[in-house]
Amino acid sequence: MKLTRRDFSRLGALAALSTALPESNAQTQEPSGRKLGWCIVGLGRISMGHFMPGVADSQTGKLTALVSGHREKAEKQAAMYNVPSPSIYGYDNFDEIAADKAIDAVYIALPNSMHAEYTIRAAKAHKHVLCEKPMATSLADCRAMIEACQKHHVKLMIAYRCQYHPLHLKAMDLIRSGAIGQVQTIESGFGFNIAPGEWRLNKKMAGGGPLVDVGIYSLNACRYLTGEEPAQIKAFASVIDHDGRFTQVEENDAWTMQFASGILASCATTYGGDTGGGGFFKVHGSKGWLGMEPAFPYQGMHLTARLADGTTLDLPDPEHDPAQFTIQADYFADCVWNNREPKTDGQEGLRDMTYISQIYESAGLKPL
Amino acid sequence: MKLTRRDFSRLGALAALSTALPESNAQTQEPSGRKLGWCIVGLGRISMGHFMPGVADSQTGKLTALVSGHREKAEKQAAMYNVPSPSIYGYDNFDEIAADKAIDAVYIALPNSMHAEYTIRAAKAHKHVLCEKPMATSLADCRAMIEACQKHHVKLMIAYRCQYHPLHLKAMDLIRSGAIGQVQTIESGFGFNIAPGEWRLNKKMAGGGPLVDVGIYSLNACRYLTGEEPAQIKAFASVIDHDGRFTQVEENDAWTMQFASGILASCATTYGGDTGGGGFFKVHGSKGWLGMEPAFPYQGMHLTARLADGTTLDLPDPEHDPAQFTIQADYFADCVWNNREPKTDGQEGLRDMTYISQIYESAGLKPL
Repeated sequence: MKLTRRDFSRLGALAALSTALPESNAQTQEPSGRKLGWCIVGLGRISMGHFMPGVADSQTGKLTALVSGHREKAEKQAAMYNVPSPSIYGYDNFDEIAADKAIDAVYIALPNSMHAEYTIRAAKAHKHVLCEKPMATSLADCRAMIEACQKHHVKLMIAYRCQYHPLHLKAMDLIRSGAIGQVQTIESGFGFNIAPGEWRLNKKMAGGGPLVDVGIYSLNACRYLTGEEPAQIKAFASVIDHDGRFTQVEENDAWTMQFASGILASCATTYGGDTGGGGFFKVHGSKGWLGMEPAFPYQGMHLTARLADGTTLDLPDPEHDPAQFTIQADYFADCVWNNREPKTDGQEGLRDMTYISQIYESAGLKPL
Repeated sequence: MKLTRRDFSRLGALAALSTALPESNAQTQEPSGRKLGWCIVGLGRISMGHFMPGVADSQTGKLTALVSGHREKAEKQAAMYNVPSPSIYGYDNFDEIAADKAIDAVYIALPNSMHAEYTIRAAKAHKHVLCEKPMATSLADCRAMIEACQKHHVKLMIAYRCQYHPLHLKAMDLIRSGAIGQVQTIESGFGFNIAPGEWRLNKKMAGGGPLVDVGIYSLNACRYLTGEEPAQIKAFASVIDHDGRFTQVEENDAWTMQFASGILASCATTYGGDTGGGGFFKVHGSKGWLGMEPAFPYQGMHLTARLADGTTLDLPDPEHDPAQFTIQADYFADCVWNNREPKTDGQEGLRDMTYISQIYESAGLKPL
C-alpha cells in the first residue's frame, strides 16, 4: 500500500481527529480571527531553522517578539519575520513581555538548565508556554514549572513534536486498534556523534548526556506507542572516548523497561556514534509489526508495518521541514483558544524526566 | 555500491580467508579425497529442511547415517540421500555408530536438553560433533560436553551458522578494520509468535524460552561484532499471554550489556511477537554505522552500512537456502581434516550459555 500525498494528508487529519484530539471540533483561531502571537525565547538552531519557519507557515500563529542575548542576530531575524524592533527583548528585560499585548505565548528553546527559570518568568508574565524537551534538568524544576503555570492560569506544553506527527499518530492508532495484536517487545535507538564545545556537553546546562537530548525520543515513543508507563527500568551508561568531550556527561546509555502489562523495551542512545541521522523504533505485536526509520528527524520519517490482516504499509512522510513545527504550533494554538490541556503537558514532561532519573540511578549516575 | 553475485562470492571468499580462517591455506577435503561422512541425529525441520540439503550440496561432505526414533521417516529420508538402510540408527542402538567407519561426524539437532547426552555418547564413539545451538540446558552439561570431546580427541563445534556467513564476516571485517570507527552502541532483536504445543515451550526440553532459541542470535552477534565480552548484564523477562503456552518458559526477554570497552548493547527477544521473520542488528560507530536486516534467517540476509569514507553499502545475500548450511559443513570438514579448533567451539557455546544464565538471573528467573 503506497499513499499519495492527498491520502497522506487525509490520513494525518483522520489520525489527529481520532487520536490526538478525540473531542475536537474546534477552530484553531480565536473567534475574532486573531493569530496566536509567539515570542521566541532563544535564537538557536531549532528556533531559527525550524520553529520560526514553522510558525511563519502556520495559519494560526505569527511571530510577534524575540528574546535573545545577541541583539544583532535578533535584529536580523526580526527583519525576516516583520517583528518590530521594540519587540526584541533581552534576558535582562524579559519580564517586560508581560506588558506586550501582542505576545500570547512563548516558545522556550534555551539550554535545558534555563527552561525552568524562563517558563516560570513567562508564567508570571501571564504568557502561555511551549517549552522544548527535555523539560528541565531536575525533577524539582519540573514541578516548579507545573506549579507556576497552574498558579498563573497559563498553558504549559512540552514540545514533543513527534506526538503530533501524522505518522506517529498513525502508529499509535494502529497499535490501539489492534492492527498488530498485543504488543510484546520494542527496540529503539537514536543518537549522533557530537562535536566538541557544544553546551550539551556541559552537565550544568544540559542536565545529562545523550539520554536527555535524543534518548528521550525513544523513551517517550515507547510510552506513547504502548500507552503504558514503565514499571521497572534497568540501565548502563558509559564513556568510551576520552577525548575531552565527556568529562561531565555520559557518552552512551542503554536501558530496558518493563511496562505494566509485561511489554519489554530495549533502547540505546549515543553522543559518540552514528545512528544514520534519525533514529528508529520497532514494535513487535502478536499479529504483526510496525516500525519507523527514520523515526525522529525533522523530515523524512518513514513508517512501515505488516498488519494482522496481511496488509503491508509503506508510508514515507511527504512533508518537508518545518511542517512538524507548524503542526505543533497549530496544536498549541488550539489548546490556548479552546482552553484545552495539551496532550504533552508538564506532567508528561515530568514523567519522562522521572524515568530518565531512574535510568541514571540504575546506571550508577546521579539522579536528577 | 551494489554487488553482483560474482563480487559477492569473491567477497565471501575474501572475508572467510581474512577473518574466519586467518591461518587457512588448506584444502577442505582429506588428501585421499574422501568426503566427511555425516550422521544426522534428529530428523526435525532444521535437519530435513536445511542441514541435509546443505550437505548434499557440499563438495566436502556426504550423508552416511541417520539417527531417528521414527523408522519410517528415517527410511524415507535415507532413500532421498542414498543412505543405506543399515546406517539408520535409533536412540536405543545409537552407540553402535562407533563401529560405523562411514561416519566421521555427527550433526546433533535434537531438543536442547538432549544435546549433552548425544554429544557425549558421540564423543565416546569417537565421532566429531557439530551440535546445534543452544549448546545445552545447563552450564554443567556444557562443561561435560567439552570435557568428553577433549577426552576422546574429537572436535566439538556449536552450529552458529551466522559466524560463517559472508555477510556477517563482512560486518565483522568492516568493524575490525575501523570502517565505522569506534563502536559505541548496538541494538538487536529477534523473535516470532510461537505455536502452541512446540517442545520449545517445555522448560525441561528447551532450557528456557525465546532467549535460548532466538535471542541467542542477538547475544552472539553483539559478541562477534565487537570482539568483546559483556562485563555486566541487566535484564527483564515477562509473560503477557496467559493462553497456556507460557506456563514453563518466559515469553519475552529484554537485556542490556556493557562490554569491557564501554560499548553498550540493547536487545530483545520474543515468543509472542512478530519480528518480521529474520531479526536485525544495528551497530553505531564513531565514523559510520552498519546493520543487517534481516540478520539471522536461512536466506535473504541483508547488510547495509555507511562507512567513514562516505561509502554506502547495500549488500543482499544472493544465495538461497541451504547455502549457509553448506558453508558451515565445509568449515567443519576443514577443521576435522586439518585438526583445527572450530571458531565456535564448546567454549564459545558455554560463554553464551553463561551470559544467558546471567540474563535469567538478572530477570529474576532461575539461572542455568
